[in-house]
Amino acid sequence: MAKIEYPLILVNYKTYEQAIGKKAVELARAAEKVSKETGITIGVAPQFTDIARVAEAVDIPVFAQHIDPITPGAHTGHILPEAVKEAGAIGTLLNHSECRLRLDVIHECIKRAKEVGLIVVLCTNVPEVSAAGAALNPDMIAIEPPELIGTGVAVSKAKPEVITSTLELVRKVNPNIPVLCGAGITKGEDVYAALKLGTKGVLLASGVVKAKDWEKALLDLANAARKWVEGR
Amino acid sequence: MAKIEYPLILVNYKTYEQAIGKKAVELARAAEKVSKETGITIGVAPQFTDIARVAEAVDIPVFAQHIDPITPGAHTGHILPEAVKEAGAIGTLLNHSECRLRLDVIHECIKRAKEVGLIVVLCTNVPEVSAAGAALNPDMIAIEPPELIGTGVAVSKAKPEVITSTLELVRKVNPNIPVLCGAGITKGEDVYAALKLGTKGVLLASGVVKAKDWEKALLDLANAARKWVEGR
Amino acid sequence: MAKIEYPLILVNYKTYEQAIGKKAVELARAAEKVSKETGITIGVAPQFTDIARVAEAVDIPVFAQHIDPITPGAHTGHILPEAVKEAGAIGTLLNHSECRLRLDVIHECIKRAKEVGLIVVLCTNVPEVSAAGAALNPDMIAIEPPELIGTGVAVSKAKPEVITSTLELVRKVNPNIPVLCGAGITKGEDVYAALKLGTKGVLLASGVVKAKDWEKALLDLANAARKWVEGR
Amino acid sequence: MAKIEYPLILVNYKTYEQAIGKKAVELARAAEKVSKETGITIGVAPQFTDIARVAEAVDIPVFAQHIDPITPGAHTGHILPEAVKEAGAIGTLLNHSECRLRLDVIHECIKRAKEVGLIVVLCTNVPEVSAAGAALNPDMIAIEPPELIGTGVAVSKAKPEVITSTLELVRKVNPNIPVLCGAGITKGEDVYAALKLGTKGVLLASGVVKAKDWEKALLDLANAARKWVEGR
Repeated sequence: MAKIEYPLILVNYKTYEQAIGKKAVELARAAEKVSKETGITIGVAPQFTDIARVAEAVDIPVFAQHIDPITPGAHTGHILPEAVKEAGAIGTLLNHSECRLRLDVIHECIKRAKEVGLIVVLCTNVPEVSAAGAALNPDMIAIEPPELIGTGVAVSKAKPEVITSTLELVRKVNPNIPVLCGAGITKGEDVYAALKLGTKGVLLASGVVKAKDWEKALLDLANAARKWVEGR
Repeated sequence: MAKIEYPLILVNYKTYEQAIGKKAVELARAAEKVSKETGITIGVAPQFTDIARVAEAVDIPVFAQHIDPITPGAHTGHILPEAVKEAGAIGTLLNHSECRLRLDVIHECIKRAKEVGLIVVLCTNVPEVSAAGAALNPDMIAIEPPELIGTGVAVSKAKPEVITSTLELVRKVNPNIPVLCGAGITKGEDVYAALKLGTKGVLLASGVVKAKDWEKALLDLANAARKWVEGR
Repeated sequence: MAKIEYPLILVNYKTYEQAIGKKAVELARAAEKVSKETGITIGVAPQFTDIARVAEAVDIPVFAQHIDPITPGAHTGHILPEAVKEAGAIGTLLNHSECRLRLDVIHECIKRAKEVGLIVVLCTNVPEVSAAGAALNPDMIAIEPPELIGTGVAVSKAKPEVITSTLELVRKVNPNIPVLCGAGITKGEDVYAALKLGTKGVLLASGVVKAKDWEKALLDLANAARKWVEGR
Repeated sequence: MAKIEYPLILVNYKTYEQAIGKKAVELARAAEKVSKETGITIGVAPQFTDIARVAEAVDIPVFAQHIDPITPGAHTGHILPEAVKEAGAIGTLLNHSECRLRLDVIHECIKRAKEVGLIVVLCTNVPEVSAAGAALNPDMIAIEPPELIGTGVAVSKAKPEVITSTLELVRKVNPNIPVLCGAGITKGEDVYAALKLGTKGVLLASGVVKAKDWEKALLDLANAARKWVEGR
């Protein structure tokens, strides 16, 4: 399985029209460029139909947005972990607030991901649920208070106690799981605040995908991460 | 909230035809009789439509089989925790293998149950998922390997390692949660084995509901629990 | 199976706190009283936990709010058609906007309802979907534009074309299915408008359940239906 | 929107391991070759991650296996009709037995597909449900009795009455919708029987995908269709 160097900036394309097809690849290229310039890891999570094209074009971590808890077989319309892997993804988001899963299904998906060699970024909504998720041994947890998603009000500044409480509860259950945070992240200062609180990076979407200048937006985020790394 | 004395034998009526309406009440009466004779707590979980009739007729703990994560309002066709409580239930099963829920929904249901004063028996399938469940602070956890449910092959005898592993993982996350086990339990010796392994009781269904003589079947189970209590 | 006389006023209790337990029975009694006074059929759809108590207390049609497509057996937490029938319901709502179902599940539920002897009121959102529903032979169709539900803006006055278009499309597929309408119905004039458009009655919820004086609210509705019947 | 010439042989890759990535393309090439040789339209429905690669490589109709009822926006992990279209699909399966949808969602998906210019092949299980589907104006209906899917026992030979009844009921609701049939189709004679009954083609999966020699299997099917066309 691929190794991720932290801090990580992970860009979820969702199903935004700004990042479909060729534009999915262009956004990934901007991320790759900024990553090389700053030395900060930037991952991208395009739609399923764009994974192969993006993974072929760039040398940064590519994630799926979801997988189903299935093995190869008769599962029309579902997302096979093997297919996502073959297309070039090194991991996947799981249980995103727009794609919540059953508890037993999350467990099964994480098992399947490990079998196939995919990194799982398990999304959660509150500290207790993050602790529950930690018991299932995902590779990362991304805490995102749903009420802040897409608002531009950064969780790391508006609700730091959600992050610190998550870090504390997750650590008790499983001290080795890196925690990201998301929701409302749009600026470098949001990233800096997130890292300072103890997270290993950020998960964001509209803050980058809907930005007029992708490179500029990513550079702002990555420079803040850079600054934090150098200040440690 | 009601206090449960352990060990607990909890009988899930599912939607078996043997225990609808008047027969739901009769089964509860048999449970009440055996409970009084043996001193062992026996709870029943009838269908929603039978909760009020059962709760009115007997003085043993009555559970719902499920609740939804809702507050009073516009939720046609859903199970309101307040309604279940008003009908006389003191608690509810949650996330049964035939009624699995999303991780965030389980969290929300447990919160709502506490607000309303309902005991939550969270059902789980494997040790890791039980540990995850423990992080959400239910009142009990009932581990039931789905492959044994309804088989008559008792988990406490066929897969004791599932129970001991569950107890160990749950204890690490939250040492105060009583663990029940279920799946395949039909005889007193299955109950005895379950208690000996460290559980606080059993969750069962067909083993009682489909028995020709409810009282006899319940007496066999309760006597075994009695024997274990006295032998401690 | 029970026979319904039209026009029908059908009151969905949803999970409103105003109509749980004893209050569920009181509301049904108010409906029964108004029904006797006016000669207009008024049905009620309480929560599952209240069906038995309501059905025992009154002599008006009682409906469930939902059924599951199951036969007696191992279906913890689900709604068995047989149980709903045994509790005293003569029918059920199906596919309400707050409880939408899969196409194949609707078909299965209607089959099960017929086997058990339950009347099905299939809820739909738009004319095309109503026509699709008609092909599955429910006993009634209730068209409710979701955007008007709970608004107090009556579909029969604000969107009469939705109703007439539904009547036309449903008639082509199956000319014998009575069509109700719902969403925003609160006053007698809304009922009168609905009947004048060609429907056989109305499905409503908050307009009655949240009214300060149930009897008065129901009387207003039933009198309007009465007036329409006499004016034919 | 692309025009399909009938009869149509539509190959659903499901999530079979035999047809992922490069092999997804190879299978499509075999289909293209046989289609050119025989003049019979052969479509393929690969996994989402393979649509772009397959559509780029071949000049036959490519379908998605599912779409979600969404517009561009915040829908992590879902299937955007626009993305499927951009990747090169001309249509999509919908409501396959392994991916059943809510009635209102099917309606919404068909609307969205039309907006985007995707052909919808609506899958159904029984004649009544097919008639219901016809009211929603999909571009094709594919009737597949679930109990025969994957068995090798062809619906067109084992249950011809399901097909004729479907054709009759669909025609009443909407006489212009081509009906395919599926389930158990593996041989040319199954295709011939299906066409003779009045269908416009077949939907199949394992019969081709799991065949040792894709070209041979497809040729057998296409030749039978050819024979039927010439015999009309």
